[in-house]
Amino acid sequence: MNPDSIRKLFEQVRHGNLSPDGAVDRLRHLPFEDLGFAKLDHHRALRAGMPEVILAENKTPAQVAQIFSRLARHGGNVLATRASKEQYAAVKKKIKAAEYRELARAIVLKRDHNKYGKGVIAIVSAGTSDIPVAEEAVVTAEVMGNDVMHLYDIGVAGIHRLLAHSETLTRARVMIVCAGMEGALPSVVGGLVGVPVIAVPTSIGYGAAFKGVAALLGMMNSCASNVSVVNIDNGFGAGYVASLINRL
Amino acid sequence: MNPDSIRKLFEQVRHGNLSPDGAVDRLRHLPFEDLGFAKLDHHRALRAGMPEVILAENKTPAQVAQIFSRLARHGGNVLATRASKEQYAAVKKKIKAAEYRELARAIVLKRDHNKYGKGVIAIVSAGTSDIPVAEEAVVTAEVMGNDVMHLYDIGVAGIHRLLAHSETLTRARVMIVCAGMEGALPSVVGGLVGVPVIAVPTSIGYGAAFKGVAALLGMMNSCASNVSVVNIDNGFGAGYVASLINRL
Amino acid sequence: MNPDSIRKLFEQVRHGNLSPDGAVDRLRHLPFEDLGFAKLDHHRALRAGMPEVILAENKTPAQVAQIFSRLARHGGNVLATRASKEQYAAVKKKIKAAEYRELARAIVLKRDHNKYGKGVIAIVSAGTSDIPVAEEAVVTAEVMGNDVMHLYDIGVAGIHRLLAHSETLTRARVMIVCAGMEGALPSVVGGLVGVPVIAVPTSIGYGAAFKGVAALLGMMNSCASNVSVVNIDNGFGAGYVASLINRL
Amino acid sequence: MNPDSIRKLFEQVRHGNLSPDGAVDRLRHLPFEDLGFAKLDHHRALRAGMPEVILAENKTPAQVAQIFSRLARHGGNVLATRASKEQYAAVKKKIKAAEYRELARAIVLKRDHNKYGKGVIAIVSAGTSDIPVAEEAVVTAEVMGNDVMHLYDIGVAGIHRLLAHSETLTRARVMIVCAGMEGALPSVVGGLVGVPVIAVPTSIGYGAAFKGVAALLGMMNSCASNVSVVNIDNGFGAGYVASLINRL
Amino acid sequence: MNPDSIRKLFEQVRHGNLSPDGAVDRLRHLPFEDLGFAKLDHHRALRAGMPEVILAENKTPAQVAQIFSRLARHGGNVLATRASKEQYAAVKKKIKAAEYRELARAIVLKRDHNKYGKGVIAIVSAGTSDIPVAEEAVVTAEVMGNDVMHLYDIGVAGIHRLLAHSETLTRARVMIVCAGMEGALPSVVGGLVGVPVIAVPTSIGYGAAFKGVAALLGMMNSCASNVSVVNIDNGFGAGYVASLINRL
Amino acid sequence: MNPDSIRKLFEQVRHGNLSPDGAVDRLRHLPFEDLGFAKLDHHRALRAGMPEVILAENKTPAQVAQIFSRLARHGGNVLATRASKEQYAAVKKKIKAAEYRELARAIVLKRDHNKYGKGVIAIVSAGTSDIPVAEEAVVTAEVMGNDVMHLYDIGVAGIHRLLAHSETLTRARVMIVCAGMEGALPSVVGGLVGVPVIAVPTSIGYGAAFKGVAALLGMMNSCASNVSVVNIDNGFGAGYVASLINRL
Amino acid sequence: MNPDSIRKLFEQVRHGNLSPDGAVDRLRHLPFEDLGFAKLDHHRALRAGMPEVILAENKTPAQVAQIFSRLARHGGNVLATRASKEQYAAVKKKIKAAEYRELARAIVLKRDHNKYGKGVIAIVSAGTSDIPVAEEAVVTAEVMGNDVMHLYDIGVAGIHRLLAHSETLTRARVMIVCAGMEGALPSVVGGLVGVPVIAVPTSIGYGAAFKGVAALLGMMNSCASNVSVVNIDNGFGAGYVASLINRL
Amino acid sequence: MNPDSIRKLFEQVRHGNLSPDGAVDRLRHLPFEDLGFAKLDHHRALRAGMPEVILAENKTPAQVAQIFSRLARHGGNVLATRASKEQYAAVKKKIKAAEYRELARAIVLKRDHNKYGKGVIAIVSAGTSDIPVAEEAVVTAEVMGNDVMHLYDIGVAGIHRLLAHSETLTRARVMIVCAGMEGALPSVVGGLVGVPVIAVPTSIGYGAAFKGVAALLGMMNSCASNVSVVNIDNGFGAGYVASLINRL
Repeated sequence: MNPDSIRKLFEQVRHGNLSPDGAVDRLRHLPFEDLGFAKLDHHRALRAGMPEVILAENKTPAQVAQIFSRLARHGGNVLATRASKEQYAAVKKKIKAAEYRELARAIVLKRDHNKYGKGVIAIVSAGTSDIPVAEEAVVTAEVMGNDVMHLYDIGVAGIHRLLAHSETLTRARVMIVCAGMEGALPSVVGGLVGVPVIAVPTSIGYGAAFKGVAALLGMMNSCASNVSVVNIDNGFGAGYVASLINRL
Repeated sequence: MNPDSIRKLFEQVRHGNLSPDGAVDRLRHLPFEDLGFAKLDHHRALRAGMPEVILAENKTPAQVAQIFSRLARHGGNVLATRASKEQYAAVKKKIKAAEYRELARAIVLKRDHNKYGKGVIAIVSAGTSDIPVAEEAVVTAEVMGNDVMHLYDIGVAGIHRLLAHSETLTRARVMIVCAGMEGALPSVVGGLVGVPVIAVPTSIGYGAAFKGVAALLGMMNSCASNVSVVNIDNGFGAGYVASLINRL
Repeated sequence: MNPDSIRKLFEQVRHGNLSPDGAVDRLRHLPFEDLGFAKLDHHRALRAGMPEVILAENKTPAQVAQIFSRLARHGGNVLATRASKEQYAAVKKKIKAAEYRELARAIVLKRDHNKYGKGVIAIVSAGTSDIPVAEEAVVTAEVMGNDVMHLYDIGVAGIHRLLAHSETLTRARVMIVCAGMEGALPSVVGGLVGVPVIAVPTSIGYGAAFKGVAALLGMMNSCASNVSVVNIDNGFGAGYVASLINRL
Repeated sequence: MNPDSIRKLFEQVRHGNLSPDGAVDRLRHLPFEDLGFAKLDHHRALRAGMPEVILAENKTPAQVAQIFSRLARHGGNVLATRASKEQYAAVKKKIKAAEYRELARAIVLKRDHNKYGKGVIAIVSAGTSDIPVAEEAVVTAEVMGNDVMHLYDIGVAGIHRLLAHSETLTRARVMIVCAGMEGALPSVVGGLVGVPVIAVPTSIGYGAAFKGVAALLGMMNSCASNVSVVNIDNGFGAGYVASLINRL
Repeated sequence: MNPDSIRKLFEQVRHGNLSPDGAVDRLRHLPFEDLGFAKLDHHRALRAGMPEVILAENKTPAQVAQIFSRLARHGGNVLATRASKEQYAAVKKKIKAAEYRELARAIVLKRDHNKYGKGVIAIVSAGTSDIPVAEEAVVTAEVMGNDVMHLYDIGVAGIHRLLAHSETLTRARVMIVCAGMEGALPSVVGGLVGVPVIAVPTSIGYGAAFKGVAALLGMMNSCASNVSVVNIDNGFGAGYVASLINRL
Repeated sequence: MNPDSIRKLFEQVRHGNLSPDGAVDRLRHLPFEDLGFAKLDHHRALRAGMPEVILAENKTPAQVAQIFSRLARHGGNVLATRASKEQYAAVKKKIKAAEYRELARAIVLKRDHNKYGKGVIAIVSAGTSDIPVAEEAVVTAEVMGNDVMHLYDIGVAGIHRLLAHSETLTRARVMIVCAGMEGALPSVVGGLVGVPVIAVPTSIGYGAAFKGVAALLGMMNSCASNVSVVNIDNGFGAGYVASLINRL
Repeated sequence: MNPDSIRKLFEQVRHGNLSPDGAVDRLRHLPFEDLGFAKLDHHRALRAGMPEVILAENKTPAQVAQIFSRLARHGGNVLATRASKEQYAAVKKKIKAAEYRELARAIVLKRDHNKYGKGVIAIVSAGTSDIPVAEEAVVTAEVMGNDVMHLYDIGVAGIHRLLAHSETLTRARVMIVCAGMEGALPSVVGGLVGVPVIAVPTSIGYGAAFKGVAALLGMMNSCASNVSVVNIDNGFGAGYVASLINRL
Repeated sequence: MNPDSIRKLFEQVRHGNLSPDGAVDRLRHLPFEDLGFAKLDHHRALRAGMPEVILAENKTPAQVAQIFSRLARHGGNVLATRASKEQYAAVKKKIKAAEYRELARAIVLKRDHNKYGKGVIAIVSAGTSDIPVAEEAVVTAEVMGNDVMHLYDIGVAGIHRLLAHSETLTRARVMIVCAGMEGALPSVVGGLVGVPVIAVPTSIGYGAAFKGVAALLGMMNSCASNVSVVNIDNGFGAGYVASLINRL
């Protein structure tokens, strides 16, 4: 974080070893990163409590374990998403404190127990098959220091189940809604609450569900104005965005 | 409807002018329709009260007027869908009794005032822009002899508007739900009632609504089991199917 | 079904233990479901004979068995669709009376033998590969108390096979037509009968069949006005809608 | 907002004019909305400063003027999006204070000048053609009581233009990024800041841009974890979501 | 057609003015076309009676007239497809004998009245809106020297109309079937006849017809084995292929 | 083939046991098929030499063997496409004379050795991976009594390989061209020959080949007018259509 | 280009008015662009002869004229693509030397007449309708200082026309191939030459051409290894890339 | 390479054994390839150093080994892409010098160690999962005689990593950029350099990444003018095109 090369330049100028013009010229050829890094540093502070994240899918257990333990050296929380039990076993050998959240398919190392979120993040999932995606959001939000509330099995075709929870919903500071098939739940929830809703289409369904495309399109066209959308099955992204909002 | 040619064949056989084998041979070469028509006639009876229908779109006013007046000779109701004012003017000159239903863009000649439907058909439309499609369904169902009830502006993001009508909804014998954008309304309505719901995706929306495709996919994947779907903007088809159901 | 909490509220008011204003206030904070449930109850009656349904796909045998036996306690019929033999074995251990309908991949517990349907539901399937989807519709309709007739192997390219059954077709009160590939059969059948036709696109075919998309589009654009459509391979949905229609 | 009908019920019970059971029964048949509205009221408070909104597109000038003046009676801000000059002229006749924001194609009536947003919303647009969508977001956020900063013409192919503003970007509490064509800007911006980024794909581009689909897909797959997405050209939605976030 | 340059080469060799090796070398650098043209000439003979064809769409009347009159110099038939009345007027000024086939939007100059086709080409169109495409096929086949039979308004939902013509159909040596919407007609026709069927999807329909895509997919997946397909609205291509088949 | 029921009707009339009117009435209620079958018989004759065909895919070896042996009783050729070695083994046990064409994945029983095709069918395949599809066309055409010529590995990027065969190509009476990836070969071949070309897109390729969609679209838009197209990987269909053409 | 602010910093340090540490700190907060611009300058030199470019589409004549004249001040060449005659008229008033290339729909101001390209860029277009796109590439390449050769009307279905030019083709140092419909030409050309081929799909075609998608897919899947692709109708991009290659 | 048959023709003419006309006639019927090959030979010279290439995917180890050893006889470099370890083992047995590049899944036989490329090809990959595709490009470019530089893990969301390398990037003569998900990297890189950029979309990502389609569309619509694109995962094609460019 210490831009030594630039300071040296200034010192050479001060000592008259280098003219200002020569210094400008030298500056032009310095590797960009030094300064860039420094410059981009301002918002680093905002990143306190941010977990280091690995997308475990398509990596070998050995690779996941190696990356995980390297990231663990930074001292903060570490999260591996879409991780298998085999990958967890490999991580566990190196990092005893790592836990496996099976439903969410996530490996978690939680050392920073500060609460960064100011309120509750409510996560609603439409069907039982949507739960893993919702749980990925739950784990992400927890690792990022939030209080999380997960409401299960709230489908639009049984709207009274949702309404029964409306009191609860109004307590949330930000919401995540996971749904497959027609993906209508975020619109209904969005109409009931006055806070931002992050919609997560899931790949649940068959036939014309097209692995989440029907749900994605439904959510993009939500008639509720407080809905924004992340990628199909991207529980992590929803949890991440919701956590950033909850810190504000 | 009088299969003369076949009767003549039988008479020739009776009078010995033709052998049975020769008759079979001749029968083989008769135009199929005569017999076919007769055969297919059984369910004609079911068709009492069915309107003659013209898809006016892409036809000239003169063509619509000509077809309309030809169909009017059958004595039953006549319906022209997707019709313009110009087309109506041309029809009106030939058939004084024809009316124009502007909202539905339909020309109607109603002479058969029997009630064929046994109950009420409830038609729900999500937004104001969906009303023309819903009205096409209304007109179709009325022309086919049904009591129709149209509930306007019932969006999923304001679910209480729907719930306020739930008493009313339970009176319907069959329902039609028209919605564009995310097309979520049929799922919600379907979950509230125990009767068949005909869903009509409309081309209302922009961007990722893809002219009704998002709504169509949403409805195909409805988590309510009592929903079946017709083509985008096909208010006529929905009204037709609902009318057939309401006659049962 | 007894909204006790609300009655208690009224009793407190009658006994002067609670002022009307206080009661209104308390009502505001009651869980919504109680009232909602009561309200939504009107059409519950319509639901007599409706089976409890489980989508077995993507569930473990243990999960299916647990849910199945829990639903069986309600005393009505239970249906598990897209179920494997392994899932059936697990169910069978808990519920002796459960049967496996292999062709339809359905587990059935039938205890209510009432006939709720007023007429015959005719189910037509285009090719041998479409039979499992058709059989799912058959089982669903039977579990919901209908007389069902299944016509096999009726392709549009051999139209005489269909015409040979036209007498039979006219006896049906509602029809289900299952077809993959070009999905043309519902149009042809729809033209022959005067009753509602539920079309089910199947994922049968290869290449440009796109796992049922070609059939789905064909059916959405049917030139027969009495056709509405459910999701690809959704035999259950078709059977459910047809059963509701047949009760009217 | 005063649930009189319910209070009257309680009073009848108190005065012995109605038994608790009779009251429960009557409650069942009350229009749902009264109670529902009350119930849903909790988060109404959150809605202070929310504008009444009209989607002017596809409405006649007369219709827009009529709806606009009706909404204006509520006393709050009113916003009509996708509005033409003709529509504005019609509104202007009825509501003198209404202004036209031409770039954003918005009609605005601003009477509530409170600041509801706690920080600055930064809105970045990629090309000149994306400005109208960005301006719709600007107007929406302003009408909802936010400080807004709009950075123009920041394309990913000229990354230094973005970096030149990085100091500024870090001051934003929430960001909106509008881009057409490949829609890459939200990923780059997302990587530079630690706050939530609302991405708006625009329909700008040609050929394989597919009217915003390429940008939409790019944004859905953003490798920056703090990005969520709204519909193509939906500047209003982005402004709305960002405003909700900025109030937290 | 006279490959002079090559003959000269041989003559130079014969007269000793060029060595064989030198000749081979020179041959290498000759413009390819001379020889290629000669070589490709064998099947030219097959092309007797083939019309010269112009796709008039997107050309100015002047351009069409100029190309038309240049092609007319070859002495054979000339056909301009997708031509407007204005384009015809311009052609007519230069080529008095040119006729306009309005329904088919084709300009025709027919001078070769030989019959090249051995049998009858039957062209079936599903709805009135499909007639222009079918007529383009009719004109093409006629210009190429065939007897053509056009059956109008034969939809699959009224299968008896088709069956009534089955005698006629069996007289055809090759068939063309034009249909929009679900495009099911070629399958049905294909099942009734034993000759090749060229299917033409038309762009007729709305909503999920997707401008002919639904019909195209339906035809690609036809369960009749004797069906092959040309592009959407490509009546010319169908007429061309059918004509080639009818010459065999 | 003997319509006994109809003959009996005529005999009853001749013997005065039935009046002509009564006979017409009875005829109306006869099963349609009898007459239909007779009527449709005309083109049966055209079907001499047509193989009985089974799509073996998705059938068990036992099923294939059972259907194969049943069809074998008709005395003609039998063809099972997309058949595995296991299916062949099962067939072989019942029908000793059945052969397995491994490259084409086809089981063939050839007993009718007549030549029904008048000329040669040339089948061109673009890459080695396209050969199985081409071989399916080869086997189909052979089983239907044609002389077949298969040209391998003729890609458009090595156009000289194609030109080297141009002499040979001109000998064909009808052509089949199989190509995956960009599917350009039929256009090039179509431009070189004057006979009908049946194009078969194959699912060969990766990425934006989309399992044959790129090739299919390429072929649908061929700038050669003598090209028509069958489904992706449908070698059978191409061989069938080509055989019908070659019989003319 | 003179980073004054930085030089001043160094001078302050030299004069002892600022400590090196203070300077580093100040540097951190300088607008990034100053330095960034300098840094990114290295490859600016590579940009000599690069035209300033305006995408005129969707801009008013006044806007185009204003931007054009501002860019003209830089002293280099200026190019406006997709420009109308009206836009040209507006530009012409301000910049007398601007020319309009009608076929290419381009406004050109050419002042730098240096040849930057080392060889010839050959541009091949498939049909007459593809010429505008090809001409956009021609103009772009010319403005960037290249010798350009345009071969018209070279379709794959008339392969001899291409082969006739093969001698010419081999003289090109880089090639651009523009084609609509099936987009097969780049594969064929790619197979004939050993230089890089830039393929441009055009939106020419109808039906399943899908406005250039079929051509785009064809080109992405080219079996010629020397082909890369730009966006549909993007003649400018192809000319730009080819010019960069030709400078190497 | 020695067109003997043609020379013999010339010798017969010289010796008077054949008239020029007879020779022309005979020439017409010679296999085309002889001459074609000679003619196409001009650019053969350009092909020095071009590897012989096998697409190993979907071939058996035996097939790959056989083709590989046959191609190895030509004396140049041989490259098998998408090859498995099993395929390599089979090749290794026949060709001892063959190496396996595991990351790239390529089998390489490098015997020609000439440098054909004039500068450095820089290959940038966005994420770790994109490395195999990038490595295929690396291997291809090396086998074709280029100096290659591979920059790993340069994502757009961490733009400083890219900028840190900007000095290095400016040294490249041509660039390849591989990226999945939103595929934004080529636009950013393209904006930083003045040389041609070959973009390779990869199939990395999930949900709305659609196996590389999102990245492909992003790259097709790049706002950087120096970008052209190859097929999804086509590292080989990118390496090939870049090598051709680097030779110029």
